[in-house]
Amino acid sequence: MEQNNKKIRLAITHGDINGICYEVILKTFSDPRMLEQCTPILYGSSKVASYHKKLLAHQGDVTFNAIREASQATDRHFNVLNITQDEIKIDIGQSTDIAGKLALQALDMACEDLKQNNVDVLVTAPVNKKNMQRDGVDFPGHTEYLSRKFERKSLMMMINDHVRIGIVTSHLALKDVPAAITEDILMEKILVMNASLRRDFGISMPKIAVLALDPHAGDNGVIGDHDQRVVKPTIEKAAEAGMLVYGPYPSDGFFGSVQFRNFDGVLALYHDQGLIPFKLMSFTRGVNFTAGLPYVRTSPAHGTAYDIAGKDKASEQSFRNAVYLACNILRNRHEYDQLTENPLR
Amino acid sequence: MEQNNKKIRLAITHGDINGICYEVILKTFSDPRMLEQCTPILYGSSKVASYHKKLLAHQGDVTFNAIREASQATDRHFNVLNITQDEIKIDIGQSTDIAGKLALQALDMACEDLKQNNVDVLVTAPVNKKNMQRDGVDFPGHTEYLSRKFERKSLMMMINDHVRIGIVTSHLALKDVPAAITEDILMEKILVMNASLRRDFGISMPKIAVLALDPHAGDNGVIGDHDQRVVKPTIEKAAEAGMLVYGPYPSDGFFGSVQFRNFDGVLALYHDQGLIPFKLMSFTRGVNFTAGLPYVRTSPAHGTAYDIAGKDKASEQSFRNAVYLACNILRNRHEYDQLTENPLR
Repeated sequence: MEQNNKKIRLAITHGDINGICYEVILKTFSDPRMLEQCTPILYGSSKVASYHKKLLAHQGDVTFNAIREASQATDRHFNVLNITQDEIKIDIGQSTDIAGKLALQALDMACEDLKQNNVDVLVTAPVNKKNMQRDGVDFPGHTEYLSRKFERKSLMMMINDHVRIGIVTSHLALKDVPAAITEDILMEKILVMNASLRRDFGISMPKIAVLALDPHAGDNGVIGDHDQRVVKPTIEKAAEAGMLVYGPYPSDGFFGSVQFRNFDGVLALYHDQGLIPFKLMSFTRGVNFTAGLPYVRTSPAHGTAYDIAGKDKASEQSFRNAVYLACNILRNRHEYDQLTENPLR
Repeated sequence: MEQNNKKIRLAITHGDINGICYEVILKTFSDPRMLEQCTPILYGSSKVASYHKKLLAHQGDVTFNAIREASQATDRHFNVLNITQDEIKIDIGQSTDIAGKLALQALDMACEDLKQNNVDVLVTAPVNKKNMQRDGVDFPGHTEYLSRKFERKSLMMMINDHVRIGIVTSHLALKDVPAAITEDILMEKILVMNASLRRDFGISMPKIAVLALDPHAGDNGVIGDHDQRVVKPTIEKAAEAGMLVYGPYPSDGFFGSVQFRNFDGVLALYHDQGLIPFKLMSFTRGVNFTAGLPYVRTSPAHGTAYDIAGKDKASEQSFRNAVYLACNILRNRHEYDQLTENPLR
């Protein structure tokens, strides 16, 4: 772990080699100030990195320090840990089998290095869920995959300058959402968010808002009863347990009246309920953070963006913010752990 | 109907007497320029209006012309058509039975006057759905109520400076949404929106975007199949019929990338999918328009707001915009009807 003057060792997984991943990574670290923040280690390929670098107009400043394992990483360099010595076929803008295989390989290696304390935090570049499905591997998304790998309850949290939104049910068909919003699941997510806001964001008594499932929160049962029957009692239990949890709030009015500014965290019950307002507010700047894991993992809020891959059009803002946030959360965790280690000091 | 120098006769229903309705109406017409736009006729009570007027700091300018029927309305006056001679009990901020009764009575009288051509357009102040439920009357909302009364297929359209969003399923529990999105219903809503964008908004070949039901539009069936099975074929049929209909678009990216600016209309499949981004974008300025009716009906996008009723805190922006929009749509209809009446001219 980072100690005093040691830099944060930041593992980056290269994501999909045919998307905008390398482009946003290279653009981020073309600013030399980023190397003062952390020591980056890209789990990927220096050959693929060189290929993408040539497609960029103004990114000549990044030089690669090719390494074989994390311990060889040096400060003030952009370290590329080559995950394979094989030739890699790049098909810009295409979903290919090899891209999925290499994305998963980088992720597994970085996770192993997190466990072995060879790196401190993880920033994942986007992958394509389809080509990530492999024999014996179900990959519903980074959040779920890492949650299983590290055997922890987790929560996808979307973070920008205005709001932190947790997503209770993520990549689920809308028809399956209501049944998935149970008291147990909701309480689990409240607990993860509450703990994360305290330890990861340094908020001693976080205020959490829970959104309603139905329009107008069911309008006292006139429209639907899920909010009264399931959501409200769970919020009350959380409040009884001493947490500052409020709601359920009808989501349109909640965002329309800018009520969200009064809360440290917002729990959206399903994907689009949280992601529509989040993306509308943050455009290209949002960050995805997996709360609840033993290790810090962030990622940009965008996808592989095949349509603009290789065209030097992608914005690195979201990726850069993901790097900053990962470093900040690690620092907050250290501070929190020191403060709570011995309350008598 | 308005002819040349005759003003538009604008019926206003008073909504819930205990909410912010009278406040936003009075604030709107305290600006004398509004009377150059139209001749307002408030279906309500001059006594209730006087009561609310006294609660406002700077609204001394509105004087009431009390009338018994619409034909008595005079230009350049704020006409109040008294719907009852009974004493009316006001309970600011409370839902009462009499408030619901009077709200419904005003609405029914204004509708009758629309049918009789005694007024030209309708702007409805907000009501409380709960106290509107009466013996023999089911009131799911203005949109549905007016749709039944005038026996037309309708579409709730939310309109602000940035976007026009139609809501396919409105006040429906989320669990019932997927089954309600059928090819027939979706096609019906596409047709209403297309016709309205042409006649009511003067767009000769409107471009319409349809949002997806599931996250990532179902991710080619990995997450869900409703978008592929129902939404996409309907869009294709609409396109075959010559309409410029596109989608289904994953809704988070659609709003995040500001794609909505490329379309004249957006069809959201359910309440929160359309209302979250709409309210986040328009705050206090949005307008609700019922497309598909034989008469023009608009309303502010807010509700009765009992919590701030009687406190002189409500913004009249949304109500004023509802008045402007109703007048504009009527003018557009006249123009469209003249242009299409005899194509040879």
